[in-house]
This record gives sequence, C-alpha cells and structure tokens, in this order.
Amino acid sequence: MKFFEDMAVGDTAEIGQHTFTTEEIKAFAARFDPQPFHLDEAAASHSLFGRLCASGWHTACLWMRLATEHRRREDDAQRSRGEPVATLGVSPGFRYLRWLSPVYPGDTITYATEVVELRSSASRPDWGIMTARNTGTNQRGEPVLSFISSVFVERRKAQRS
Amino acid sequence: MKFFEDMAVGDTAEIGQHTFTTEEIKAFAARFDPQPFHLDEAAASHSLFGRLCASGWHTACLWMRLATEHRRREDDAQRSRGEPVATLGVSPGFRYLRWLSPVYPGDTITYATEVVELRSSASRPDWGIMTARNTGTNQRGEPVLSFISSVFVERRKAQRS
Repeated sequence: MKFFEDMAVGDTAEIGQHTFTTEEIKAFAARFDPQPFHLDEAAASHSLFGRLCASGWHTACLWMRLATEHRRREDDAQRSRGEPVATLGVSPGFRYLRWLSPVYPGDTITYATEVVELRSSASRPDWGIMTARNTGTNQRGEPVLSFISSVFVERRKAQRS
Repeated sequence: MKFFEDMAVGDTAEIGQHTFTTEEIKAFAARFDPQPFHLDEAAASHSLFGRLCASGWHTACLWMRLATEHRRREDDAQRSRGEPVATLGVSPGFRYLRWLSPVYPGDTITYATEVVELRSSASRPDWGIMTARNTGTNQRGEPVLSFISSVFVERRKAQRS
C-alpha cells in the first residue's frame, strides 16, 4: 500500500479480472442469495433477467478479493524495492453501489479503481481518508458494477503533525 | 411479497438471525476477502481488530440470504391464505453501507429491515420503488451493519394507470 501522501486524485489501477462460471454462480447463490434466477437455468429463463446470472453480491465480493490480491502484489513490489509499506486501516463502508447490468456465465469482468478524493482525518492525524470509485466492466465494455469506497490509509511519519 | 400499495413507511420486520462460526468466517475470507485478520487468529491478534473477525462483505451477504428466505416465507404465507403475491423487481443497488462494529466468532447477528420511503416509478407505471434501511445487530445490542436498499415492487393491477 502506498502512503497517503503518495496518492493522487485520478490515480487509476486495473485490479484484476474474473470469469464467472455457472458452477460458482450457483454455489454462491445457494449460500447467500438463493433466488431462482441465480440458481436454476429454467427458472431464470422466465425471470426478468432472461437467463441465469450472478448475484450482485457475488460480483461485488469478487471485487474485494481482487482488490486484496492487488494490494498484496503492490506491497510485495514495494518491499522488493526496499520501500516501506503503508498500513491500510478500517473501511467505514461503501456508498452508491450500483448493479448496472447482469453478469452471465462465461462473462469476464475487469475490475478497476480510481482515486476520487483524498482528505486528512481530523480525528486521526496519523491517517488520511482515501475515497475511490470502483468499477466492474464486462468483455463487451458494459459496466456491471460501480461503487464508492472510503478507507483509512497511513500517513508518512515525517508528514504527521 | 406484498404489493407496493400494501406497504407503509415505518413497516419493520426482523428477517432472521445468524451465528458466525470461526470455520465459516475463514472459508468466506479465503474465497472473497483474504486479509490476515479474517483468516488467522495469530495474525488477527496483531491487527486493528485485535482478534479474528468476519469480512464485512460476509456480514452483508448473510443479510441477503436471510432477506430472501424471509420473503419466501412471506410469499408462502400469502399463498396459503389464497392471496396473490407481488413480483419483486430488480434492485438498482444500495447506498450508505456501513460496518459499525466487527463481527467475531460466536456472535449472533439479528437482521432487520424498515421501509423508509415509497415512491412511484415515473418510467415504469406498473412498479413502485421501495427504499428500506437494513440493519444487523449483535447479541449485545451493538449495531454491526447498516445500509439503504432500493428495489422495484409490483403494483396491484387495479391501481395502475
């Protein structure tokens, strides 16, 4: 993780891709979103979606996994260059999560993130708050997921006052 | 599902409870949120959370499952009384998701929902839009999760214009 001072509004990163299979769509739905159009092709064909599609929560959870793995790769690269690694703090939550198009079996979603706001924390001078717009886009270029996240990011010690 | 006209702002429902086990916290994290404090007790003891805790996405996904099961029980009850059942439409997404306290192994979360807004859909006269505040509260009465969801709900045919 970069330190807060090393981030800039407009920074973008592609965090990874995931191809959704029928099997994992059904497995996720059975555990967390057991609606017919996420579980069964025949039922889905009569639904608003027209065919089997992934739970929106599934699409969002994959963002989380790829973001975590992306951060780990970044941390490893920083360490291999002998650079210190910032601590990522807690996330207060998310805003404006939107499921923009269904994700169907075989769809490959490319997840990306863009820094949209950086601000100091009044209550926690050792930390800044980074706000990002996170997106998922399918192989046809159609957006499927969008949400705004905020997270505490460690400041460089020299910059703290 | 009730029809849009049968809903009222302030309607509340407890949708269910879930007790989070160590095993499922780690299994979810391994698939969707592989951060050390969700995967490993020793690593978690050195983290900001102090001990192993559930991914916030896991806490949210359980809301989805319990909401789906709650709706199914409601639909079954309506059908058993010979009443028609409304169709639930797509969800455009959610807003203001907040993780308010960590969820630790053994915690039992009670999930609830409250209707906070009902409005007609200008573009889809057969549907209304129901907005709800959804919450999770642990066995000590502490809120752990809160978010605002909106979903399209079918109107009674007689009411459509």
